[in-house]
Amino acid sequence: MNITVPGFRFAGVSCGIKRSKKRDLALIVSERPATAAAVFTTNRVKAAPVLTGMKRVRRGKIQAVVVNSGNANACTGKQGMRDAENMCRLVGARLGIDPNRVVPSSTGVIGVPLPMQKVIRGVGKAADVLSPDSFSLAATAILTTDRVPKTSMTACRLDGKKVVVAGMAKGAGMVAPRMATVLGYILTDAAVDPACLRDILSRTADRTFNAVTVDGDTSTNDTILFLANGVAGNRAVRKGGKDAKKLEKAVSKVMKDLALMLVADAEGGTKVAEILVEGARSPAEAKKVASAVANSNLVKTAFFGEDPNLGRIMAAVGYADVPLDPDKIDVSLGGVRVVRRGMALRETQSQAARIMRQRSYQVRINLRRGKQTASVWTSDLSTGYVRINSAYRT
Amino acid sequence: MNITVPGFRFAGVSCGIKRSKKRDLALIVSERPATAAAVFTTNRVKAAPVLTGMKRVRRGKIQAVVVNSGNANACTGKQGMRDAENMCRLVGARLGIDPNRVVPSSTGVIGVPLPMQKVIRGVGKAADVLSPDSFSLAATAILTTDRVPKTSMTACRLDGKKVVVAGMAKGAGMVAPRMATVLGYILTDAAVDPACLRDILSRTADRTFNAVTVDGDTSTNDTILFLANGVAGNRAVRKGGKDAKKLEKAVSKVMKDLALMLVADAEGGTKVAEILVEGARSPAEAKKVASAVANSNLVKTAFFGEDPNLGRIMAAVGYADVPLDPDKIDVSLGGVRVVRRGMALRETQSQAARIMRQRSYQVRINLRRGKQTASVWTSDLSTGYVRINSAYRT
Repeated sequence: MNITVPGFRFAGVSCGIKRSKKRDLALIVSERPATAAAVFTTNRVKAAPVLTGMKRVRRGKIQAVVVNSGNANACTGKQGMRDAENMCRLVGARLGIDPNRVVPSSTGVIGVPLPMQKVIRGVGKAADVLSPDSFSLAATAILTTDRVPKTSMTACRLDGKKVVVAGMAKGAGMVAPRMATVLGYILTDAAVDPACLRDILSRTADRTFNAVTVDGDTSTNDTILFLANGVAGNRAVRKGGKDAKKLEKAVSKVMKDLALMLVADAEGGTKVAEILVEGARSPAEAKKVASAVANSNLVKTAFFGEDPNLGRIMAAVGYADVPLDPDKIDVSLGGVRVVRRGMALRETQSQAARIMRQRSYQVRINLRRGKQTASVWTSDLSTGYVRINSAYRT
Repeated sequence: MNITVPGFRFAGVSCGIKRSKKRDLALIVSERPATAAAVFTTNRVKAAPVLTGMKRVRRGKIQAVVVNSGNANACTGKQGMRDAENMCRLVGARLGIDPNRVVPSSTGVIGVPLPMQKVIRGVGKAADVLSPDSFSLAATAILTTDRVPKTSMTACRLDGKKVVVAGMAKGAGMVAPRMATVLGYILTDAAVDPACLRDILSRTADRTFNAVTVDGDTSTNDTILFLANGVAGNRAVRKGGKDAKKLEKAVSKVMKDLALMLVADAEGGTKVAEILVEGARSPAEAKKVASAVANSNLVKTAFFGEDPNLGRIMAAVGYADVPLDPDKIDVSLGGVRVVRRGMALRETQSQAARIMRQRSYQVRINLRRGKQTASVWTSDLSTGYVRINSAYRT
């Protein structure tokens, strides 16, 4: 599928940052400054491009994004900050854009200075080939250990105009500081009020990118940037209106698609499981329990082993730090009840084992404390994950 | 080394709970009711023997412990509670001890009812062979996936009398609900005031058993029980005195020995790393950072891969939820400085790689926020860990 977003051009080129000679520099450029919202890593150790990007998105409109893969520009001190700003200056000079309207992103090895000569060459090369049709090349150039590019697109009608919402993302471990990180870019030609854009992004991120886990680690470089350039000519979407709902639905679809692609492409992953927690007092409480289960190494190795090891799920529920009553908890696996009122059911074990042979399934946990729910999607923990993450050498 | 503790007898027998026919039932019996203190799992899903044991230790003195391995008696409902109490009643009847002074422990598969016929046979068999010299047989009968028994002993002089402090423990994953859990029994012939005993146990547990991690999971069955039978004839040790300090030092030695044996015997483990955090505002803050690093799958796979992947350590420090300044952090690996003021040092990488080839080493992290420190000991995350925890089938 060829994805285009009116008013945006893209490039994805190779400039030698990756030894493999794969594409490693991407540009996303809007024909006019776009309203911007972003969520960045909560890690206190933030890479230089994250610090630069945070400042710029806070300050105002954004017109271009420059991304390199193969080097995270993190733990690189003052030189790293200068390099991140120089990446933007290069793009600004080359394209006649205010460098303060350029956001930099980096992903790859931590603690190694950016090879700026290569970046300079890459920016020049990319600027030369910018095209509305190169969305997928840009989506390829931001990858590291990912096996496949991750893109999604949808459209909706706002104020009588058809608008496009499209996104690209990368990430295969939630963090693998040398070679992973989550980056996501969501683009639309809709005109959107800045407060509304921020609102939609933060709410949607909570239910999508922030609801998937591969290894529970948080990168120094995570960035989700949402740009709306207004080329569609609709009246700017405002908070609370009908159009805001429609846009949020479109953004949700794209971001959930991308988030699930991250889990499906998890390092070494062979399974995708949705951990759905019901009957909680609040969505936050539900998510706390779902996250404990989704991040348990023992649950995840049981998924890999296709073993309906219910004790591990119950143990993870129990240490989630929610004052629940174990004797009220029900657990189902792909529709098969495996724990009733806190007691493991031996009679459904073989049925459950059959479900766990599937590539993806749902684990449903009812706490019977309230009416709130939350889902977290997780991969399994395989020998492949360990191999990928231990074999990588300096 | 043959461990004996005056006034205590032991047994470790096989009664068929484990299919392997290995020893699976242990007894620890004091000639007189002993002052008792215990720490139990913080998991809200608690196994039946934990619930029974909590009640009894709170109520008063303890004279015997009965432990079975191969079945955790967890998620087994009301039947499980009856079985746990029946285990104690059997021991009481057989040995003429008040059943309320017997503590039960179980470790092994979750969600399967205890095979009580086998337990009955086991208790009878064990009662017949109780002996002051069978400490190591009992230490063997409490094991599950452990490769080696874990025991330690020391002595000190209190109030002019020589007293012994000895301990046995089991555990190879911090939890692997089917086949792991941490159990520890610390025994002394000293006379100790109950409040002093509780005080020493809780403080020491924090720095030893609660400062080691294999996979960050918490079992439904964890139990550390400390019994002091007073056979040594010393004046009871009280809080605040010189003897309390001496006893705490002895208990610390035994518990730290046992805790480090747990990490060394971690499922699939090939490394033992001490994560020492210095320069924190409080010991709790230091432990928070040390735990984040010690539980990071990416740090642990780097240990397995012998790769000085400093970015992963810095990333884990950053997401520990402590308001630290990344630009002040120093990290050393076995004495070699690898991060200075938040910046990775390329020039020491090969030296650090050499250190990581050792079986055990220290990672030292200075936050430069205060004067407090804490250590957490951790294993690596290997393909072996995943194999052990995914291959186990019902």
